Amino acid sequence: MTASFEVVATYLVETYLPLEQAAEAIAGEQSTGTFTAVARETPELRERFAARVLAVEEIPATGNADLPGATRPNGAGRAGTAPQAGKRSARVRVAFGLDNFGPSLPNLLAAVAGNLFELRQLAGIRLLDLDLPAPFAQRYPGPQYGVRGTRELLDRPDGVLLGTIVKPSIGLPPEELRLVVRELAEAGIDFIKDDELMGNPPHSPLAERVAVVTEELDKAAARTGRRPMYAFNITDDLDRMAANHDLVHAAGGTCVMVCVNLVGFSALAWLRERCALPIHGHRAMTGVYTRAPQLGIDYVAWSKLARLAGADHLHTNGLSNKFYETDDEVLRSIAAVRTPLLGGYETLPVLSSGQTPGLAPETYRRTNTTDLLVLAGGGIHGHPSGPSAGVTAMRAAWSAATSGTALDAAAAQVPALQEALDKFGSPYAGTPGE
Amino acid sequence: MTASFEVVATYLVETYLPLEQAAEAIAGEQSTGTFTAVARETPELRERFAARVLAVEEIPATGNADLPGATRPNGAGRAGTAPQAGKRSARVRVAFGLDNFGPSLPNLLAAVAGNLFELRQLAGIRLLDLDLPAPFAQRYPGPQYGVRGTRELLDRPDGVLLGTIVKPSIGLPPEELRLVVRELAEAGIDFIKDDELMGNPPHSPLAERVAVVTEELDKAAARTGRRPMYAFNITDDLDRMAANHDLVHAAGGTCVMVCVNLVGFSALAWLRERCALPIHGHRAMTGVYTRAPQLGIDYVAWSKLARLAGADHLHTNGLSNKFYETDDEVLRSIAAVRTPLLGGYETLPVLSSGQTPGLAPETYRRTNTTDLLVLAGGGIHGHPSGPSAGVTAMRAAWSAATSGTALDAAAAQVPALQEALDKFGSPYAGTPGE
Repeated sequence: MTASFEVVATYLVETYLPLEQAAEAIAGEQSTGTFTAVARETPELRERFAARVLAVEEIPATGNADLPGATRPNGAGRAGTAPQAGKRSARVRVAFGLDNFGPSLPNLLAAVAGNLFELRQLAGIRLLDLDLPAPFAQRYPGPQYGVRGTRELLDRPDGVLLGTIVKPSIGLPPEELRLVVRELAEAGIDFIKDDELMGNPPHSPLAERVAVVTEELDKAAARTGRRPMYAFNITDDLDRMAANHDLVHAAGGTCVMVCVNLVGFSALAWLRERCALPIHGHRAMTGVYTRAPQLGIDYVAWSKLARLAGADHLHTNGLSNKFYETDDEVLRSIAAVRTPLLGGYETLPVLSSGQTPGLAPETYRRTNTTDLLVLAGGGIHGHPSGPSAGVTAMRAAWSAATSGTALDAAAAQVPALQEALDKFGSPYAGTPGE
Repeated sequence: MTASFEVVATYLVETYLPLEQAAEAIAGEQSTGTFTAVARETPELRERFAARVLAVEEIPATGNADLPGATRPNGAGRAGTAPQAGKRSARVRVAFGLDNFGPSLPNLLAAVAGNLFELRQLAGIRLLDLDLPAPFAQRYPGPQYGVRGTRELLDRPDGVLLGTIVKPSIGLPPEELRLVVRELAEAGIDFIKDDELMGNPPHSPLAERVAVVTEELDKAAARTGRRPMYAFNITDDLDRMAANHDLVHAAGGTCVMVCVNLVGFSALAWLRERCALPIHGHRAMTGVYTRAPQLGIDYVAWSKLARLAGADHLHTNGLSNKFYETDDEVLRSIAAVRTPLLGGYETLPVLSSGQTPGLAPETYRRTNTTDLLVLAGGGIHGHPSGPSAGVTAMRAAWSAATSGTALDAAAAQVPALQEALDKFGSPYAGTPGE
């Protein structure tokens, strides 16, 4: 490794200062600078270690609220002036020499995020994207299974992968979980996962869940020739998480789920080194980074870190979801996960939240791929005729979508689909995908 | 452990829906609910596992911007109506049965944060505080040294602890670091730390820094009878972080620094189990949680998690800092860290960012304690007569502050203090502390 490798971070910057001054404040705070000149901060040292502002591209005003404490020279934006008068917005690209920190996720974050969100010079600051150099690929193996490995384990070489979340989210005793899994497996589901709220609680210990679920999956495999993948939520303190993984693996389980933000990127990377199974990356708490438009870390940057750390599957949210994101934002997240990173890291996007059969045509039309894991929780468990009919309806809807058949025509042949459409609706009926 | 233990989370909730409905949306999403009724979600299951809204206390309008995607029934807040008309704000307290997840930091976060920040029902959502039950104290030993242990290691039974950050932040070769440490140690500093940007980079490997620093500290101890504490930044991927700790410990180092957010709470707790030294908890990236007033995690809640995970020292920011926080916010953070948690967890608050001698009287007046570690980076290294004079000035300022001597009077006796005041100013001159 030579000092010529660089990380390039792209930010949304909003400021009442001259844009170049705000950009330089970022580069200074996040590398050699402090609030005053200090001994030994030589021109040579700055030349070698200072972050460099590569580009400042002004963009139209966003309308975003100001972050508190933002510097407003000459009273700009204060009472008596037009709101936000004088505030400017830009996409700013800053290069950090990799020699400053080496290819380490936590130390990378110190540089590209660190104290940045607290700078008074900025009225808005958001990390949009990260360009990472090759040494990161040498340090982090990334997804072990990804799209292809997951398809191989499932013996589903093509087509959308269909899954569900065990519902109710928490509180289901292991013996009732057994019945849910049995029904779903019989109905031909590809994938089942624990809710992110269901870890290893006293009322439903992971060991008991693993025992009943793997027994049911084995039975289903013997009967149907297909063994669904079950993602056990192993999220926990780290030694326990590793032990949870070992428990799942020893029992013949084929997937573990980790809530990426709840353990952190480096904990995920640490698990990856010890992991024999695909890691299903849940995005719980991503909203704390993404939802305030004037602050945070965009999903594009966030997902790169999660993929590098080893997520084989990564939640992107789905169209017409029950959360705050628009379809365009969701599609951008799906595209981000599918974009090669450092020449590889083929993570499978996981569409979830409020997913029902009626969304299949539009989802397929706008993603133009079947390399998706589509999870319907309430959309399967809440089917009027029960979870088995819910699986049938989802499968029929996706089959129609990918073959270009109208949903109504498919529903005329598949009563379970008609029931689902009647209950959950067809939000995009009349659009080109329908 | 019985099911009667509960975690109580306090939120700022802003919404265009009836406040009770928004509060119930939190409780539902974060425990038994999904977007539609599902099989097996029995009244008995809900009774046992559902989160309970304990209190909804309406507060005056905050003026915070709306989060994107917030539901606005009947067009409330839309064009043609007064901005934010119909939005209400409340402090909401929700109880989660500990039996839902057990005393585990990551699984706690799934419940009290999880998908919460993404809920459409909320136009603002911020986790303000957490009341944690006793089983957390059994699982997490917390700070190993805390205030008293740190004072013992330093042989400073009373008085403010004075420290500095090595500057320039990055790029200083080990042999120059040696000279900086020598000068600071000779000048009687209590504590020195790496910058959070200085991890284990190729140009200044931690092993080399440890070697030169401990040699200088040993020499200083032999000459002066005092050995400053040096917090080596061991932040890195986890196995490397543990190895970094072992390296520091084996060399006779007395402190390690970890950037809490960059590794995550559970990685900190994992280190704590393997750690022989005080953990200096840096708060880099806390701004991503705290700065948007309509979203995030307040420092009060954040600091409890960091203390539980084992931070002996925790950065709170300082008065008149270079970042966005007001003095009142900083004082609230210092008070939060000093408030006993689960009957203990005596973490030392670390005041940093733009700290100079002129701030000592006001800081002492408003905190009314000397159980503080006050770090001056630029305020010491940027002293006109160099770092040694910087230490002398800080010590003299704090001595004056705690003995009730006016800074001007002290400066008349200590030229280094006068120089510092001339350069950095006395922002609170004329207030009662001066």
